[in-house]
Amino acid sequence: MPSETLEKDPILETDFVQEVIRQLRALDTFGARDGMSDHQLLERLLLTRERLREIPMVGTPDAEALTRLRVFYNALAALIERECGRMATPMIQVNAEGFGRVIVSVGKLLVLDRTLRDVHRFGFESLSRMKTEADKQLSVALNILGDHPKAAGI
Amino acid sequence: MPSETLEKDPILETDFVQEVIRQLRALDTFGARDGMSDHQLLERLLLTRERLREIPMVGTPDAEALTRLRVFYNALAALIERECGRMATPMIQVNAEGFGRVIVSVGKLLVLDRTLRDVHRFGFESLSRMKTEADKQLSVALNILGDHPKAAGI
Repeated sequence: MPSETLEKDPILETDFVQEVIRQLRALDTFGARDGMSDHQLLERLLLTRERLREIPMVGTPDAEALTRLRVFYNALAALIERECGRMATPMIQVNAEGFGRVIVSVGKLLVLDRTLRDVHRFGFESLSRMKTEADKQLSVALNILGDHPKAAGI
Repeated sequence: MPSETLEKDPILETDFVQEVIRQLRALDTFGARDGMSDHQLLERLLLTRERLREIPMVGTPDAEALTRLRVFYNALAALIERECGRMATPMIQVNAEGFGRVIVSVGKLLVLDRTLRDVHRFGFESLSRMKTEADKQLSVALNILGDHPKAAGI
């Protein structure tokens, strides 16, 4: 996706993508990417078909893959938190074979609980696909919250 | 604790310690400790005062510390599972500074959720102290289950 397209994309203004940008800046502990614009940061995050082709089918998740995973679920947790008004905490576990589990808890309730496979290949080829997946998972999480508000402490 | 004492200790017959032994054998993937008796295995697991003194105050959790942590919480999860009749899944996250979080979930309910500190020094000096702590945490977990059976799927 050329920068000009991404720069004008209205998706950049959505809560989810704004949160993704915040997470990307937060994970950049040493400020190595301070000079990058938001859309430069986002472009690095996307797993385009070309990049995906370069990743072996079987492998150990590298730092980039873990960043893609963390940014996605941290941003999703932040959105859940905003929607329900209670702290939503993500927790991610990945082993060297690229299998793992991600949860997001609100109070004593697991509003999200997913098994991860092929973490080294985790990613989205466009912001719109990432947002679609986030919206889907957000909606499931909010339904779970609606079903069990007491366990969530709401 | 000399072997003779441990060998005759009735605590060895408790569900918790039996489960600890099972977990120790399960984590021994390559069978390196197949030749060891139960009480030899348990002795290695204990963090006696002498051993604790050798561990620096600040440090990165090593494999032994992570084993002590996993065995304890896996055994606790197995006990929770036996009590409530539903699968109880532990999940442990530890960073290089020895901080982390452990949860045990039953259905969508977090029956245990603890912040970990100084994981490199995690351990118990005796089986009875380990069992006392396990009983305490088990009782809290069962209370949470009693309060939110629907979220746990019971």
